[in-house]
Amino acid sequence: MKYVITGATGHLGRQITRQLAQRVAPEEMTLGVHTPSKATEFVQQGMTVLPLDYQDVTSLVASLRQADVAIYVPSKSHDSFSRVSEFENVVTAAEQAQVKHLLVMGFIADQVNNPFDLSAFYGYVPRRLAASTLDYTVVRNALYADPLVPYLPELIARGNVIYPMGDASLSFISLAESAAAFAQLAVTPKLWRQPIYTLTQERSYTMPTLAEVLSAASEAKIGYAPITLPQFAALYNEGNEGHMLASMYAGGAQGLLATVSTDFRQIMGRPAQSLPDFLSATLAK
Amino acid sequence: MKYVITGATGHLGRQITRQLAQRVAPEEMTLGVHTPSKATEFVQQGMTVLPLDYQDVTSLVASLRQADVAIYVPSKSHDSFSRVSEFENVVTAAEQAQVKHLLVMGFIADQVNNPFDLSAFYGYVPRRLAASTLDYTVVRNALYADPLVPYLPELIARGNVIYPMGDASLSFISLAESAAAFAQLAVTPKLWRQPIYTLTQERSYTMPTLAEVLSAASEAKIGYAPITLPQFAALYNEGNEGHMLASMYAGGAQGLLATVSTDFRQIMGRPAQSLPDFLSATLAK
Repeated sequence: MKYVITGATGHLGRQITRQLAQRVAPEEMTLGVHTPSKATEFVQQGMTVLPLDYQDVTSLVASLRQADVAIYVPSKSHDSFSRVSEFENVVTAAEQAQVKHLLVMGFIADQVNNPFDLSAFYGYVPRRLAASTLDYTVVRNALYADPLVPYLPELIARGNVIYPMGDASLSFISLAESAAAFAQLAVTPKLWRQPIYTLTQERSYTMPTLAEVLSAASEAKIGYAPITLPQFAALYNEGNEGHMLASMYAGGAQGLLATVSTDFRQIMGRPAQSLPDFLSATLAK
Repeated sequence: MKYVITGATGHLGRQITRQLAQRVAPEEMTLGVHTPSKATEFVQQGMTVLPLDYQDVTSLVASLRQADVAIYVPSKSHDSFSRVSEFENVVTAAEQAQVKHLLVMGFIADQVNNPFDLSAFYGYVPRRLAASTLDYTVVRNALYADPLVPYLPELIARGNVIYPMGDASLSFISLAESAAAFAQLAVTPKLWRQPIYTLTQERSYTMPTLAEVLSAASEAKIGYAPITLPQFAALYNEGNEGHMLASMYAGGAQGLLATVSTDFRQIMGRPAQSLPDFLSATLAK
């Protein structure tokens, strides 16, 4: 089998690559990456690394050519149209390269009324795939749990979780768990009969409950004192992503980030690691 | 009030314009059209006609400027990405022009698993609007009933409806009824609280039942003998739209064109004209 991973040096892509390497031989793995020098770890293990530019269909076709399974992780632009433009190149290239099965990262914030800046992209993706000649699986992730760990010192200093979420709850998955499910899906053709999976832990958290979990993990007293969406957008505008983040929590406050599914269990044969277990395991490292 | 209609000389746009003219003064109406010479009928009635190019944000802003209500009917490209590109220009322009309420044409074939070539566009639209600063209403039409009328002689010659629909059913609305609902929505701000309406007659038709309705309307014997999707695509490839049409019926065969709603009744205070009534009224003309 030939496996191709695009964006293999990104946050999720790197973890998917590592997880897949636990299941298949490195000679079966091709990585399409923007900056090959960031992929030294993988070259040393015997994987093929090819330069890939999502804006250049030729380089995409070269990376994806005759993949049995290709895994596409979108690049990090902050608006739907940029991502749709990139995705059109990926679909065109995957069809040209005769990819047998395409795995695509999705996100739970894709509902028809979701004000999240990228909801239109995540709504576009599965429909575009349904209209393509491709065999595909969309893997919708819940919110990543991982950023909570480096965020803990700030939360402890503030004494509060400040997400503008009202009474609504958030659903999480860790990058490692998501990556494990991607890798498991890649090597398990019988799971390809279901076109969309949703990866979440088995419960979601209201902000007071999240604050309790973070208090227990950090052994500090953390409460819940939401700020407003504009305050949130201004506070976390690093890399100009304040608006996108605020729009995500605007959808969250409407209950649109609360989705919980047992699909992870269906793929992996076990439930996803709970948030308290993830936090204590990560903080112990 | 200032009303702006884009694409006002197209099939639907022209009928919306006429319906709106029955409800408001022509001085309140501005039409943004690709070919102003096609809008003579409306200039003579006292409406303002402006040149509009969907690819040119400046011309869009000029047409949409400070509209109380703007009605956007997409142009007829056959792939989702072209339409998304156009729609991005419309959203950008509507925000710049400070449009107070935007009415947008949608379509029932927008489900997440719909193989219709334009389903990705119709999935993108409401989500993109939800992420915009605009106040909006999406009006999802069922299949237009109107093309059945000029199609009747061919169906009579064939002796059969040949849509590749299996046992699934189709839902219809006439252009005139859709246009009336658009116009009514435009002049009724209290209806803007619901972001999405679905315009259909009050029942859908399996192909054997559709054949019976067409037999009764034409006083000829019409049965149902479906051809295959590739045959259908090849047969109706005029204007290179065979693939798009076949993909629509591929979704239809999955039951994805069967949606029935009472939204028309909610907007108009009466049910939509039934298909038999539409056919007999149109054939009597």
